[in-house]
Amino acid sequence: MADFFIETKNASPELPQSDRPKMFMFGVPSYTNMGDQAVSLASRIFFKKEFPEYQYIEIMDYDNEAGISAVKEIISKQDIVGYVGGGNMGSLYTDIEKDRRDVFSTFTDNLTISFPQSIHFEKTAYGEDEKKLSQEAYNKNRNLILLARDAQSYRRMQKTFKNKIAFTPDMVLYLTPRTFNVKRSGALFILRHDGEKILDESFIESLKLILKKHYSLERTDTVLETPTKITPKTREKLFEEQLQKIANQELIISDRFHAMVFSVLTQTPCLLFGNSYGKGKHAYFDWLENISWIKYSDERDVTRIKMELETITSAQVHSYDLRPNFRPLKRIIKKYIAERAVVR
Amino acid sequence: MADFFIETKNASPELPQSDRPKMFMFGVPSYTNMGDQAVSLASRIFFKKEFPEYQYIEIMDYDNEAGISAVKEIISKQDIVGYVGGGNMGSLYTDIEKDRRDVFSTFTDNLTISFPQSIHFEKTAYGEDEKKLSQEAYNKNRNLILLARDAQSYRRMQKTFKNKIAFTPDMVLYLTPRTFNVKRSGALFILRHDGEKILDESFIESLKLILKKHYSLERTDTVLETPTKITPKTREKLFEEQLQKIANQELIISDRFHAMVFSVLTQTPCLLFGNSYGKGKHAYFDWLENISWIKYSDERDVTRIKMELETITSAQVHSYDLRPNFRPLKRIIKKYIAERAVVR
Repeated sequence: MADFFIETKNASPELPQSDRPKMFMFGVPSYTNMGDQAVSLASRIFFKKEFPEYQYIEIMDYDNEAGISAVKEIISKQDIVGYVGGGNMGSLYTDIEKDRRDVFSTFTDNLTISFPQSIHFEKTAYGEDEKKLSQEAYNKNRNLILLARDAQSYRRMQKTFKNKIAFTPDMVLYLTPRTFNVKRSGALFILRHDGEKILDESFIESLKLILKKHYSLERTDTVLETPTKITPKTREKLFEEQLQKIANQELIISDRFHAMVFSVLTQTPCLLFGNSYGKGKHAYFDWLENISWIKYSDERDVTRIKMELETITSAQVHSYDLRPNFRPLKRIIKKYIAERAVVR
Repeated sequence: MADFFIETKNASPELPQSDRPKMFMFGVPSYTNMGDQAVSLASRIFFKKEFPEYQYIEIMDYDNEAGISAVKEIISKQDIVGYVGGGNMGSLYTDIEKDRRDVFSTFTDNLTISFPQSIHFEKTAYGEDEKKLSQEAYNKNRNLILLARDAQSYRRMQKTFKNKIAFTPDMVLYLTPRTFNVKRSGALFILRHDGEKILDESFIESLKLILKKHYSLERTDTVLETPTKITPKTREKLFEEQLQKIANQELIISDRFHAMVFSVLTQTPCLLFGNSYGKGKHAYFDWLENISWIKYSDERDVTRIKMELETITSAQVHSYDLRPNFRPLKRIIKKYIAERAVVR
């Protein structure tokens, strides 16, 4: 077998055949969106910390089909199947959605967890068709639990699927905040170049105009251009570099939900603007509204934005703890483990 | 026994001693807040429709202590205990919070449901003391499930209590929208006079100034001055009158969450402003953001508010259905019934 399976401790090309119960995490991203990379890293950290008795096995996105076949061979009663979270459930990223359907409709006898997601099926004939395909696939699995990472997604999932739905933050918010002892300098625009982008370039230019009086400016995206592929072996270092880069800034302006999350983790002032369907906005109001150094804005009036920026750049840093909000996920897994232990 | 117990079908002063399983709903409001009255009415409608085999017994707020004693005498295994929802969990309404603690810490062997609530413990020594009292009381009951009616309350409940938390809309949103064939006329201000009020009178005056060019204006509150007391027998008629009054308007301006909910039910354009801790704002973004004829606003600039009003008053009415979001509550009850049926 090729390197389809990666045991987190000592990456092994062999499918581990130990007696330990196993967590099979599907959909681990090889693409260079650092938000999704951070999600898969945080999911592993969560699982290794909360359920250390489980062997945590990651199956790369490009190996979904082969991975399903191989896991089918060895999966046993107490094993758990997961599909990594992110912001890609729905009709916008159908290659991923197709993989998700395949996983969910295959392992119907095991606890199957769709890790915290946002959901968006477009209101078009295409979107409706995709929704039906997902409904059919998800509904085959009575042991499937969907986690929504914002209330809008929770509401939409309840409406769309018959499966159980639970509500937790994005997995990256499980990580502990860190202090970087660096002198901050400059303002960094972290902006989308994808179909979810709604910020006008002319508006971005007007923001630059007011910011360049006070800051040196730079523009980037959380999607890296190099390397072109990331594995569980390389992602941690790249994630650290990403955090470091954000921790170096005086200010982040972004329309990327995870740029805001990275700013939360590094105590970096961040003003977040929306995407096409409000995933960052909703997550902000649900979980992050009380964090003083970040703010969500729908504003387009530059004078008002200046006031918002003054608020976040002058804010006192404070502690926060979102870990209690992962209890529903822990409960689901503990309950399953207890039930299966009785059966054995 | 006095009229502590009211069987919904034929109000009986006797505690019903039938073989039917029973739902004991505590905290039924006698006070004249029509929002809370609607909550208790909708809770009864929900339970009678979804679990018709259960006898639904309401215990008035003023009878909490005697009610607890009497229910203790007859409660049996399959019975369920509830405490009505609203926006009063926390340190703002401690008479109600004390009653809630007494109920939760008493019936620890039965499924106990705290119906959908907002929560707010003040960040003061007093608020902290009250929080501790509630934590102690709630934590005595391992069969207690708390329902949060907005994501902010869900997050706060997870942080505050060890109990299971579920997430559903306010019970009034279980009710079906209705069409009133009346000619609408005028704009109605429905405004708080309590400690949760944050709207300045001067701001209200500036709104009146722009509105009186187009509408005849009136001001009221969802808290009635007459009658001074409401019972389960009189509340339905008063609720109908309240809906009718709102359905007669061209526009509602309010800082009352349930004024917005009544506007949803009657397809009446409504602009909602905030209260002291964001309960209406969060519920709006979680459940109602896509309903075209209502809008939440933090705006204080009258010119911008005019644009918001134009949007909602010219909006097309459309259908919506929040019932799928009550599935978590139905599941909790069904699971309990199934488990207790096995035990018997």
